[in-house]
Amino acid sequence: MAAAAVKPEEEHKMKKKLVIDTDPGIDDAMAIFVALRSPELELLGLTTIFGNVYTTLATRNALHLLEAVGRTDIPVAEGSHVTVKKATKLRIASFVHGSDGLGNQNFPPPTGKPVDQSAAAFLVEQANLYPGQVTVVALGPLTNLALAIELDPSFPKKIGQIVILGGAYSVNGNVNPAAEANIFGDPDAADIVFTSGADILAIGINITHQVVLSDAHREKLEQSDSKYARYLSKILGLYYDYHRDAYFTKGVYLHDPTALLAAVDPSLMTYTEGVMRVQTVGITKGLTVFDNTKKRYGEMTAWTGKPTVKVAVTVDAPAIVELIMQRLTTDD
Amino acid sequence: MAAAAVKPEEEHKMKKKLVIDTDPGIDDAMAIFVALRSPELELLGLTTIFGNVYTTLATRNALHLLEAVGRTDIPVAEGSHVTVKKATKLRIASFVHGSDGLGNQNFPPPTGKPVDQSAAAFLVEQANLYPGQVTVVALGPLTNLALAIELDPSFPKKIGQIVILGGAYSVNGNVNPAAEANIFGDPDAADIVFTSGADILAIGINITHQVVLSDAHREKLEQSDSKYARYLSKILGLYYDYHRDAYFTKGVYLHDPTALLAAVDPSLMTYTEGVMRVQTVGITKGLTVFDNTKKRYGEMTAWTGKPTVKVAVTVDAPAIVELIMQRLTTDD
Repeated sequence: MAAAAVKPEEEHKMKKKLVIDTDPGIDDAMAIFVALRSPELELLGLTTIFGNVYTTLATRNALHLLEAVGRTDIPVAEGSHVTVKKATKLRIASFVHGSDGLGNQNFPPPTGKPVDQSAAAFLVEQANLYPGQVTVVALGPLTNLALAIELDPSFPKKIGQIVILGGAYSVNGNVNPAAEANIFGDPDAADIVFTSGADILAIGINITHQVVLSDAHREKLEQSDSKYARYLSKILGLYYDYHRDAYFTKGVYLHDPTALLAAVDPSLMTYTEGVMRVQTVGITKGLTVFDNTKKRYGEMTAWTGKPTVKVAVTVDAPAIVELIMQRLTTDD
Repeated sequence: MAAAAVKPEEEHKMKKKLVIDTDPGIDDAMAIFVALRSPELELLGLTTIFGNVYTTLATRNALHLLEAVGRTDIPVAEGSHVTVKKATKLRIASFVHGSDGLGNQNFPPPTGKPVDQSAAAFLVEQANLYPGQVTVVALGPLTNLALAIELDPSFPKKIGQIVILGGAYSVNGNVNPAAEANIFGDPDAADIVFTSGADILAIGINITHQVVLSDAHREKLEQSDSKYARYLSKILGLYYDYHRDAYFTKGVYLHDPTALLAAVDPSLMTYTEGVMRVQTVGITKGLTVFDNTKKRYGEMTAWTGKPTVKVAVTVDAPAIVELIMQRLTTDD
């Protein structure tokens, strides 16, 4: 007996509702495109944040990317321009992604506009519309999520899951030996989010540094006729240059698309669970320290009694690269 | 042809001159005894520091341990009672070693006295007497070494090597998830020592937690007639109790004797080299962050341009346990 056909309406219901909080960014562009090409996902919107670029430019790039692939049906909500502690001196990774955040390609400005709602308000609204059903994939500093929690203290319980690309677990950071860039961008926000009690999956650079797009993959992207591959081929050059200079590698790390795929299929990684705290001051500002709970400490610590989160410890890197290539080299 | 006999005088010259900076402490007692039983070493003296006990008690215990095995020829120099920043609120691990630091055995007070010289002054004097030839094995907080550097800025270049038992590299700490006890005891001192330019070998709890004295070893110690084994058998009970309660293990970690043996035979471990900094404030105060130099950072960091140190990454644990047992179960 053949399986009953799934009606389009039911198929729609089964999709995972997703918001991407993003600072595009070359690998953000890849992650957004992979999301658009993932039948498992329904993209409710993009929220923007500083990080790879300033927030204004992140909003512009988010709108531009959706227009570039004909998906102006997806709303963009602009996020915070400052950290949760109102700091305006931000670390912007233009040396990784170009001064325009998209490989210095001088793309024309988008014609669309962001919605008339802050990223935090948009996140709270979506969580209220679909309680327990919305996944947020956070690809930049966690300011918008911390502000959503401030706006609605029940947000951590209403949101489905938060997949965080951030932190460096048992490895050195990428901003300095202690800190990873997204956490470093707003350590106070990160500490608020990690200890909020939300269902959190953290993916650090110990994982994403294993997921490499090689030169051979890049050539395959360049040979593809899909609109996604054609767009990405234009902007990848600078990202390859940065990796060669900073890491002495020939490929590039697929940070953002890896985190996105963890939302699509969590079984691509394995996880451990424990309490995460973020150092917010001093030379290790932005450092994530995860308590693996193997020891009973004699004293109360800053980790004692805080809610746990899940942290990725292993990854099926070849499967992730293949999935990314598959989705980006085919059209809708 | 038989090898030429080594004259006692020459044999003496070939021995590694050693000072142990110590806060006895049950595993400190083991390390001191192993040092006394190591023909490769000439023990120039003990310097004392707070940590497992307050400094006054550390001095008393150091004198007591030398008297217990008839080695009152070795001088003891009393160290600092406060941190380098003059903090008097110290973390004392009496819940690990007992309120007397030696398993609550109520030993009589020693008859000897410490030399009329501070630990820092003693360390500087020894480094000047034997430039480049003195190894310091530091088994507690690094206050005395930081004060020696303050006293004589050329100390880091005059001292032969500093073997530091301290830090937690790519693993959680033992005071809290961030910090290891010896570094936590005086993080400012640790940062001074690690960045001083001295020849430094750091051995963290990622290493010493692999070197376990099992119940079977303990029984062998108890069956031995050596004065060292007989003494240690009396004080080990509390240390076993602590490990069972805190780590859910049946054996005990041999922190201090492991660090001591790294001075005897560095080939018992493998090492990596890089810059170490210590976080001195906030929830991760006392955290050691080691830069593995695999990345070229875009910005200046707190690690940039600092001298490198060596950090142990693997250990031949069975060989170390065997060596410790061998030396402690035989008499002079």
